[in-house]
Amino acid sequence: MIVGRLDERDQATIDDQMEKEAEKEEDPYDREPTRHPRLKVHSEQPMNAEVPQDAITASYITPAELFYIRHHHPVPLLDEDEIETYTVDIDLSAYGKGTLELSLEDLKKMDKEEITTTLQCSGNRRSGFNEAGDRTSGTTWGQGAISTAKWGGVRLKDVLKLAGLDDPIKAEEEGYENVCFESLDGMSASIGIEKACNPYGDAILAYEMNGEPIPRDHGFPLRVIVPGYSAVRNVKWVSRIALSKEEAEGPWQRGLNYKMLPPAVRDAGTVDLTKMPSMMEASLYSGITEVGPSDLGEDASLKPGDKVMAKAKGWAWAGGGRNVVRVDVTGDGGKTWSTANITEGGDQKFGRAWAWVFWTCDLPAVIGEDGKIELASKAVDFAFNHQPESCAHAWNVRGLGNNEWFRTSTPVL
Amino acid sequence: MIVGRLDERDQATIDDQMEKEAEKEEDPYDREPTRHPRLKVHSEQPMNAEVPQDAITASYITPAELFYIRHHHPVPLLDEDEIETYTVDIDLSAYGKGTLELSLEDLKKMDKEEITTTLQCSGNRRSGFNEAGDRTSGTTWGQGAISTAKWGGVRLKDVLKLAGLDDPIKAEEEGYENVCFESLDGMSASIGIEKACNPYGDAILAYEMNGEPIPRDHGFPLRVIVPGYSAVRNVKWVSRIALSKEEAEGPWQRGLNYKMLPPAVRDAGTVDLTKMPSMMEASLYSGITEVGPSDLGEDASLKPGDKVMAKAKGWAWAGGGRNVVRVDVTGDGGKTWSTANITEGGDQKFGRAWAWVFWTCDLPAVIGEDGKIELASKAVDFAFNHQPESCAHAWNVRGLGNNEWFRTSTPVL
Repeated sequence: MIVGRLDERDQATIDDQMEKEAEKEEDPYDREPTRHPRLKVHSEQPMNAEVPQDAITASYITPAELFYIRHHHPVPLLDEDEIETYTVDIDLSAYGKGTLELSLEDLKKMDKEEITTTLQCSGNRRSGFNEAGDRTSGTTWGQGAISTAKWGGVRLKDVLKLAGLDDPIKAEEEGYENVCFESLDGMSASIGIEKACNPYGDAILAYEMNGEPIPRDHGFPLRVIVPGYSAVRNVKWVSRIALSKEEAEGPWQRGLNYKMLPPAVRDAGTVDLTKMPSMMEASLYSGITEVGPSDLGEDASLKPGDKVMAKAKGWAWAGGGRNVVRVDVTGDGGKTWSTANITEGGDQKFGRAWAWVFWTCDLPAVIGEDGKIELASKAVDFAFNHQPESCAHAWNVRGLGNNEWFRTSTPVL
Repeated sequence: MIVGRLDERDQATIDDQMEKEAEKEEDPYDREPTRHPRLKVHSEQPMNAEVPQDAITASYITPAELFYIRHHHPVPLLDEDEIETYTVDIDLSAYGKGTLELSLEDLKKMDKEEITTTLQCSGNRRSGFNEAGDRTSGTTWGQGAISTAKWGGVRLKDVLKLAGLDDPIKAEEEGYENVCFESLDGMSASIGIEKACNPYGDAILAYEMNGEPIPRDHGFPLRVIVPGYSAVRNVKWVSRIALSKEEAEGPWQRGLNYKMLPPAVRDAGTVDLTKMPSMMEASLYSGITEVGPSDLGEDASLKPGDKVMAKAKGWAWAGGGRNVVRVDVTGDGGKTWSTANITEGGDQKFGRAWAWVFWTCDLPAVIGEDGKIELASKAVDFAFNHQPESCAHAWNVRGLGNNEWFRTSTPVL
């Protein structure tokens, strides 16, 4: 039976689509975006790349092309039609309401919020664990799995309200404690309703990064931004948001991937993962990006044991919006500490300091037997948490959350 | 000119009052409450007393009579008339609204909230600083300047709303960032409006402690409870609450008393205190209250270097509502860690864990040359902050915020 004849253009479209599907099947990594050559690539498929050290503090807002990349899958590619018809489903069906489908245009008509926040992979500085103790699993990040952007979009609580979540406090009391995100790439994660709906929580659905549409590598067309939380909760390419009594399924929420197990656990198969919380808020970090002895000149008389004046530059960041109130830097292994000058980011709102600070410090440093000075930084947050001296006591099989003092050696002789 | 003759009873009342005033002038500490003999008193005037070690974990809710006491002045005493006419003034005059005077009866007619929260003096464990480095100023607390109670009262945000604060977000944007408290004893302190009005912040005006009217030592008739904040912000005997663009005046907010200066500062006169934040959220603490070797029996063959199984019991608490997700305990100086069992307090809401956890742990411990075992505990909060190994790097002239690993030695030979 012939039900009609296809117009030649329609046939061409179908051919196109079939070809595209076929191509996608051939190699899912065929259509990855082009990346900046300066990114320090740890893996190509999926792409995992950190910011080169000197670029970390080159500008307070990281340029999108140098923003670190941590993917679990190939980057989703939407064609023009798919962009046109793209919606995010706000699914309150478990809560007895309906599902609201919002297009990008719908979102752009709502009140816009801009939030500057630092994102960091929970495994940033993992390489330090490997040096301190046994090898851990996962990408051996240096300090560069961290970046900062200004995100523009719509408050998550406004979107949930529009979909019918009138009283988040009541919903939580009834057990609806989780807001779950699903991504076009198959990834899923969730946060608590108290973060999603907190008027001071600043969680948004972002369609802009640094004033432009979000690049594919960072979540085009839509990314959840959960300030102060581990980057894994800031789900890219988000296609569905659901209110639920359960946290999201999948390894990124319930599995080992983002669970910081006790040091004694060498085999993750021996513990009950359901009793171990997944990483949500990040802890407290700092890093040194530049070191220069400031007044050495051509002093040929210097020798190991002598003290020189050094200059250091770096960053510091705490999760949970906890303002970094101080950065201490030492050039003698912690015997004495100098207080750094916070040069940028020091004026963020109390408890809503979502982005990092930059700092500089002039300090005395002792030349070691190897002709080098070793500087170490530790940040202090507004709750007066300090970074611990050694990650040895926080070693964990997945290598998450290494926030020991940041140490770096520089030759001066 | 005679304007009238006083009734004999009125004259008696005036005489009474004059006598009372005279007495008060004689010695302001004459009318202090009677304290429990088991409290470990550090100073009598003003009263500063900690919980005896074995009572800390004897019950999850600390009995009011054993709750630690940290006063700055004599304890206010209200007679029956003063209780009858007592009001707290909710002063929004700076914000262009009026002042609402609320009596205890008015407050008791409002919706009641009950919040279980741990309070800790910011100087708890100060004695550890003195052992680690130079002497610090202030009461040489052990681990006992911490206690937990269930407080009953009215949400601070509800009271502020009743007084005319309809839109806290807008008020904050206009610069009204502080909610200031004044006490009958002359003390003052403030918190941010984002804590006072946060629907998940749980700040209340309490008129009950553990189901009874608050005892005088703990704030009768009314105390501000600011869960997760240093106890100094939980102002006792509160008589006035004001919305302000400035934080509270006085040494407890702006002065040195609750500012954790950098380790390098030995003379607080050399720094600009206005640039140093006062302590608000507390950091992360733990303590060991009981140690028993569990299976030593009468083993006379034990000697230094041998390993025994020990049992420990203790507490852990993080400020800011950050759930304690783990307590690690070591009996070999941190070479290996055992994970404690959280026995109480482990089921608090995510991010609203205002009260401590109790824990027990069985672990191996090595007998030292002195015939003792040394156990150390460190807590881990939900942001995966760890307690630092040593307070030497956090030493500060006022001796605040010592949250190094808790260590305790026990003879076993």
